[in-house]
Amino acid sequence: MLDSLNWQSHPYHMIDFRPVGYVVGLLVAALGVTMFAPMAADIFADNGHWIAFFQSAVVTILCGSLIALSCSNGVTGGLSLRQTFLLTAMVWLTLPVFGALPFVFGITDASATDAFFEAMSGLTTTGATAFFGLSELPEGLRLWRGMLQWLGGVGIIVVAMVFLPELRVGGMQIFRSEGFDTSGKILPRAGQIATSISYIYVGLTIACALAYAISGLSPFDAAVHAMTTVSTGGMGNYDTSFALFGPGTQYVAVLFMILAALPFVRFVQLVSGTAEPLFQDTQIRVFLLTVTVVVLLVASWLWGQDGSLTETAFRHSLFNVVSITTGTGYASADYMTWGTFPIMIIFFVGLIGGCAGSTSCSIKVFRYQLLFASIKSQIRQIHSPSGIFKPQYDGRAVSEDVLSSVMAFFIAFILSIGIFSVALGMTGLDFVTSVSGASAALANIGPGLGQEIGPAGNYAGLNDTAKWILAIGMYVGRLEILVVLTILSLKFWRA
Amino acid sequence: MLDSLNWQSHPYHMIDFRPVGYVVGLLVAALGVTMFAPMAADIFADNGHWIAFFQSAVVTILCGSLIALSCSNGVTGGLSLRQTFLLTAMVWLTLPVFGALPFVFGITDASATDAFFEAMSGLTTTGATAFFGLSELPEGLRLWRGMLQWLGGVGIIVVAMVFLPELRVGGMQIFRSEGFDTSGKILPRAGQIATSISYIYVGLTIACALAYAISGLSPFDAAVHAMTTVSTGGMGNYDTSFALFGPGTQYVAVLFMILAALPFVRFVQLVSGTAEPLFQDTQIRVFLLTVTVVVLLVASWLWGQDGSLTETAFRHSLFNVVSITTGTGYASADYMTWGTFPIMIIFFVGLIGGCAGSTSCSIKVFRYQLLFASIKSQIRQIHSPSGIFKPQYDGRAVSEDVLSSVMAFFIAFILSIGIFSVALGMTGLDFVTSVSGASAALANIGPGLGQEIGPAGNYAGLNDTAKWILAIGMYVGRLEILVVLTILSLKFWRA
Ligand SMILES: [K+]
Ligand SMILES: [K+]
Repeated sequence: MLDSLNWQSHPYHMIDFRPVGYVVGLLVAALGVTMFAPMAADIFADNGHWIAFFQSAVVTILCGSLIALSCSNGVTGGLSLRQTFLLTAMVWLTLPVFGALPFVFGITDASATDAFFEAMSGLTTTGATAFFGLSELPEGLRLWRGMLQWLGGVGIIVVAMVFLPELRVGGMQIFRSEGFDTSGKILPRAGQIATSISYIYVGLTIACALAYAISGLSPFDAAVHAMTTVSTGGMGNYDTSFALFGPGTQYVAVLFMILAALPFVRFVQLVSGTAEPLFQDTQIRVFLLTVTVVVLLVASWLWGQDGSLTETAFRHSLFNVVSITTGTGYASADYMTWGTFPIMIIFFVGLIGGCAGSTSCSIKVFRYQLLFASIKSQIRQIHSPSGIFKPQYDGRAVSEDVLSSVMAFFIAFILSIGIFSVALGMTGLDFVTSVSGASAALANIGPGLGQEIGPAGNYAGLNDTAKWILAIGMYVGRLEILVVLTILSLKFWRA
Repeated sequence: MLDSLNWQSHPYHMIDFRPVGYVVGLLVAALGVTMFAPMAADIFADNGHWIAFFQSAVVTILCGSLIALSCSNGVTGGLSLRQTFLLTAMVWLTLPVFGALPFVFGITDASATDAFFEAMSGLTTTGATAFFGLSELPEGLRLWRGMLQWLGGVGIIVVAMVFLPELRVGGMQIFRSEGFDTSGKILPRAGQIATSISYIYVGLTIACALAYAISGLSPFDAAVHAMTTVSTGGMGNYDTSFALFGPGTQYVAVLFMILAALPFVRFVQLVSGTAEPLFQDTQIRVFLLTVTVVVLLVASWLWGQDGSLTETAFRHSLFNVVSITTGTGYASADYMTWGTFPIMIIFFVGLIGGCAGSTSCSIKVFRYQLLFASIKSQIRQIHSPSGIFKPQYDGRAVSEDVLSSVMAFFIAFILSIGIFSVALGMTGLDFVTSVSGASAALANIGPGLGQEIGPAGNYAGLNDTAKWILAIGMYVGRLEILVVLTILSLKFWRA
């Protein structure tokens, strides 16, 4: 299917939903099959809760198969541009519905709102949770939360690497030939990209789990946290996130959060024997430099407060800045108590995000590079009105098309934060909770600011309307906003 | 001078500061002369405080004349592009220094920080105040606060109408031929624009003062508040702003705040007998529509809370929404007590602002129109990758140049809010105060959110560092950010 994205041939037909439904159905059924893993975990732990996953799996596999079967007569072997859009949008809307079933059937006995919120938060790798008493949950449900994030994470990289560049959304077209051409024909086909990336993803997860286990976590905790680290998801097995883990475990998390926020195609190239792209990627360099500067800023602040250069202050600064910049959302301490400066810094780095082609969300480093390049060439233009100044990225001139796409993305993102903040305020949340909640959802970070949804809180106490607004925010953010706007536009359906 | 802006002829010389210094010196001396007005007010009120203005006037006129004289040998009759930039930047940096003298010499006995903050806040029409007990101030100082705003206001319109379009800053080049050509050769020369606009400005101020007096204000209050209304400045003679005035006065304020936020060139055309441009201006229509929708939203919320459709709720909603959208910053009630939804709305409308070519600041309506047009054409482009879709403004295609200029402005504005918020947070202010203070300064609104700097508070209690940061923010915002960035860029000095 991925090999034959072929929209030039039939762009102006009525949309045929069947190929979209077919793929969605297969993915739903596949999600149902994965539910046997947490079922096995519950059986192995002998906690008596496996039945919830059995029920969920049966319902999910049945529904998925029915959807796929009912659409199978329309499968043509290729997807049009509009079908690709719809597929992306439908997958991230349908999977959370079925991913929510174990929470409804299981011991959490969750309301439809809480269950959908948790599943959406999981699959979009946001990591905001509507539950507390996490360590009391049966093993199956804890594993399921990790699996949702892990599956969502790999799906996102595939969408970011294969779909978005072709859909020309948010400037991602700049990576269009990436991996196809620049890596020297190593990966000539999109399907192969997806496969190679999956290997890397699995490899990173295993390495992370081993490192966690060596650092002292139980095998179960190591596995679940590895899944939510590599997906920059941030869900964990404890209400206090990483606060109760030792320094070694925290440093392991930092390492793998950073790796998970780098462009995965670089790892593919590295494994294929070409290391240069990894070390020459301007996006990676800017990302690491930004993180380093911000960590030192926050650490200096904490050192100033303490009056001494403690390792603890450095570690907490490192951990939480990396966690929020990469959009993971773990916390090693309640940074709401650190003072306004670090809080503000942590809020704004959440709007930076990691690299394109990783599991991290938010605005992303390459867009800031393009925006700054554009402002720079604007200022040159103001100096010398008769000159022509093209913004550059990675030493090459950037086309107007990519630039306006990036700018449209940035503006849509900022306006979305405004709109979602106002909507949350309407449900009665205070200013800080509304604004930081909107950002944390749209940027798929997880924790917001304040006592309620900050690093020491959770989303359990919010009203249902707020939870639905936040779930929509996570969805809109994960689909890079413009995908959603495109589908909402009337022209999409009329064309 | 304005008639002969002629930078094509000598764009690559070392900057000659003398023509800039000459104009700055003349303007400083002129500001000194205006200080005789508050001196007369103090003499007339017989409050014994006229000496402060006498001292200030002498120092200011002397310094201004010395600056002008020392530069007079370099006056050529024309300004280069870079000299025009420098002039704009220097005027708004120098005048506040001298405008601050009466606060230092006067009864307020203000620190250098408070005096400069107040003068910068006045001349940029921000209206944030570092003083309380305003009604206890001598008449001269109250008048001076109003005059600073009034003088700043007319200066801004001239810069926005004559300088910025030529400097191609922030998309203002879209209004380049505005008034020159589209009005049918009515105003062939820039100097004439400035003169016509000054007449309109004076006329509006007199009309506003009369209306205030008829509505029940004392002649003195009517005059001062008229000056700060027409300049969308927002300083007043009372700590409680408009809360103690009657409904009639509040409705008068609403009318003139709206008029002051419209493009002044339309009034010039109206007075010349052509009313169509006023009624056909798309920017005006979108502005009025936005205000109407937001007022009704907030009023509905208040009505819902009250359980009845009171005039009071409508009036307070109208007054405060208009006040913040136009960037005036008066308050008729403490809207911090209204709940998060109206607070959030009021925060975000402050980032909309009025029309280009008025005294209001912020991002402004036409930029949103261009941004939305751009996002719309982006989405069409995503649908049909082979098509070419040009964003339109007022029925005409907008050039790439204007669009990237507007986008660069928007992005620079948003990033500035981030940077100034973090800087304010560093001085120890809380999150809401920092973010809303940064916005209120950069958008030249005045009041922020929260108890300290909200509608019921003032800036008196902030630390000195925060006051300096805010004063810089007002300056950067008033000069549309890109002017400041241009001058800060190394290339500017090297060219
Ligand atoms: K996350
Ligand atoms: K103002």
